[in-house]
Amino acid sequence: MNIDRANTEAVERMMEARPVLVGVGKALDVVPGMHENLLMHAGPPITWERASGPMRGAIIGALMFEGKANSPEEAEELIKSGKIALEPCHDHQSVGPMAGVTSPSMQMYILENKTHGNFAYSNLNEGYGKVLRYGAYDDSVLERLHWLNDVMAPVLRDAIEASGGIDIKALLAEALHMGDEGHNRNKAGSILFLKSLAPHVAKVAPNAEVASAILKDIGDNALSVLNPVMAACKAMADAAHGVEGSTIVTAMARNGTDIGIRVSGLGQQWFTAPCPQPKGLYFPGFTAEDASPDIGDSTITETAGIGGFAMAAAPAIVTFVSGTPQLAVDTTLEMYEITFTEHKYFTIPALGFRGTPTGMDIRKIVETGIEPRVNTGIAHKDPGVGQIGAGLVRPPMALFEKALMAYAEKYGF
Amino acid sequence: MNIDRANTEAVERMMEARPVLVGVGKALDVVPGMHENLLMHAGPPITWERASGPMRGAIIGALMFEGKANSPEEAEELIKSGKIALEPCHDHQSVGPMAGVTSPSMQMYILENKTHGNFAYSNLNEGYGKVLRYGAYDDSVLERLHWLNDVMAPVLRDAIEASGGIDIKALLAEALHMGDEGHNRNKAGSILFLKSLAPHVAKVAPNAEVASAILKDIGDNALSVLNPVMAACKAMADAAHGVEGSTIVTAMARNGTDIGIRVSGLGQQWFTAPCPQPKGLYFPGFTAEDASPDIGDSTITETAGIGGFAMAAAPAIVTFVSGTPQLAVDTTLEMYEITFTEHKYFTIPALGFRGTPTGMDIRKIVETGIEPRVNTGIAHKDPGVGQIGAGLVRPPMALFEKALMAYAEKYGF
Repeated sequence: MNIDRANTEAVERMMEARPVLVGVGKALDVVPGMHENLLMHAGPPITWERASGPMRGAIIGALMFEGKANSPEEAEELIKSGKIALEPCHDHQSVGPMAGVTSPSMQMYILENKTHGNFAYSNLNEGYGKVLRYGAYDDSVLERLHWLNDVMAPVLRDAIEASGGIDIKALLAEALHMGDEGHNRNKAGSILFLKSLAPHVAKVAPNAEVASAILKDIGDNALSVLNPVMAACKAMADAAHGVEGSTIVTAMARNGTDIGIRVSGLGQQWFTAPCPQPKGLYFPGFTAEDASPDIGDSTITETAGIGGFAMAAAPAIVTFVSGTPQLAVDTTLEMYEITFTEHKYFTIPALGFRGTPTGMDIRKIVETGIEPRVNTGIAHKDPGVGQIGAGLVRPPMALFEKALMAYAEKYGF
Repeated sequence: MNIDRANTEAVERMMEARPVLVGVGKALDVVPGMHENLLMHAGPPITWERASGPMRGAIIGALMFEGKANSPEEAEELIKSGKIALEPCHDHQSVGPMAGVTSPSMQMYILENKTHGNFAYSNLNEGYGKVLRYGAYDDSVLERLHWLNDVMAPVLRDAIEASGGIDIKALLAEALHMGDEGHNRNKAGSILFLKSLAPHVAKVAPNAEVASAILKDIGDNALSVLNPVMAACKAMADAAHGVEGSTIVTAMARNGTDIGIRVSGLGQQWFTAPCPQPKGLYFPGFTAEDASPDIGDSTITETAGIGGFAMAAAPAIVTFVSGTPQLAVDTTLEMYEITFTEHKYFTIPALGFRGTPTGMDIRKIVETGIEPRVNTGIAHKDPGVGQIGAGLVRPPMALFEKALMAYAEKYGF
């Protein structure tokens, strides 16, 4: 067993993957294994009983969105009845930011990795604040979800088709030269997304009013591209998964209770630990007391070599997540210590166009004692509230130690 | 005479100016002093006889665009006849990139400084390559100018009106956090411009095809916002002009033969020197041998504290203008030596959100011996060709020495 050779193959596959946004479709129609009574969620497997506040809020909201419940109480009753399955997005080639709760009727971005042929999916982004993925579910949240699903999604579907597909890898490479890190700062990426879509939206929208509303929504939502970006990272990470003997992390995700990782050479097993508490900046009226433990599949970005790992590309992000521009640089520099390679296509101008630190290596993490660094949004700990801030967090060492022990057991080192 | 007090007033006026894009109108209707037989041009005054190749090419093209000549030969005959006046854009509250040739029928962006009430103007941006402002004038160039003027401009006018005005100062502040420096790199600014306009373009365009074409044009042209940005800088610099005793540069511009500056406390006089030769990167098939001397009003950006002065905000620009990311940082750091203040609103994340070096002080330039640094496009030296590259250039010390001598003479120091 040559571990370095296995890891080289894994990261090569990750970097050579070329995820292209090729369409939009209903989860029930496009996501493998989706069915009428399934809700997908962020992170490793979770039950209602162990679910965090924002996860519970999002489950309630999704069941109401689906018309399976008419009130939060009905939704709670239904989920407790056991008639609704809960399964990780990651088990269905999908990823979802924050609670990541995705229901059968939701429209999904479809990403195709043109190099290796695998697909990945994510739902549409709702914007900031009081939104389902942060556990909010009032009428305004459900109304917005219906608008996204019924009005915006069909136009996006036709616009993406008319565009011939949007190369999200190329978009990301460009956004990293424009002050984004691709996880918590997607300002440039979202308007690059708008730039690609706008000429097609104007043509395929049913009328000028709808075209205008959609262009405004995509342009004003500085996270509009986050979900396609996450699905693109999932497509890249999945391409790197399953390489015999590889110690590269190919999934890292939190459900608000547990954080879990998967490792390329260790199959579908999740290695889990309790979710850490993020540190950051809070919206007016909220404090660290209100914060849910860390949550979301969005750490797929760090898994693919962007996000917190590329923070040196995004010094302005510190106004949103806390810290200083120097911290942004130091974060990236530190991540080189625990990654297997430097990205061939994602580069950081301020570091002399050095490639981003790519491919978390569980050996290096355990050897150096350096935990990864992640940028994240912060949800309120209670269901029904929403986003209350953004910050930084470090997935705990226990994850990587457990994985390394399993590796030793499997491969006999 | 307290020079520092005068300079403080000048730079305060420059920084507190708030230029907003409020409309689009025909030069003949909106530009003060424009008339049927006037062509405005970049830089200090110039005659046909002394004009550089790209300036001549743009004059020829503009006369053909106006229908005053049917061939380059007719245009040349007309301009030599003396029936067409040539005057600097700067004398008409206007600025034009590269040759800057602006004719009476051309549609202009209208910028209003909401703080001090002055206006500034610039024409529409044609994009890269074979374009009028770089001295090209073949049919494709004139066709594109007509499309910009006849199809795009009316839609932009209505879209800007519907938007209630676009705050270009705020746009610039944001673009500096997204890897732009506002002169030669306007990638982020141009798609922020698209973001502001798109919802309105979709509504006011005569039909979906036109809306689509305009959205594509603005989005694909990474310089689409350059002209409104230049006019915004002109509005800021004009606000700082005319402060008795001030040594701050309020205009710096090149016509391809002479480079000239104006100083806040020294009235309308131009202090000139021969244009330097830019150094940079050339498009395939061209070399430094083909390059025209430096040309254009776009140094109004450096005059207002962005462009080359803010290069540390835009490390990725070095792939376009030559140099290394370290050079980008060093350029900004050096410019602090010759400027009077640090900008209150234009900040550089990578330098800990330090304000950009703002307000070239002719005293400091002469004392330190440090010439300003400018990012620039490079035109072919012959008329009719167009852009052949982009690079860096330093306006010569003679400009500032002459101005300082005139200052000493006027103020008796």
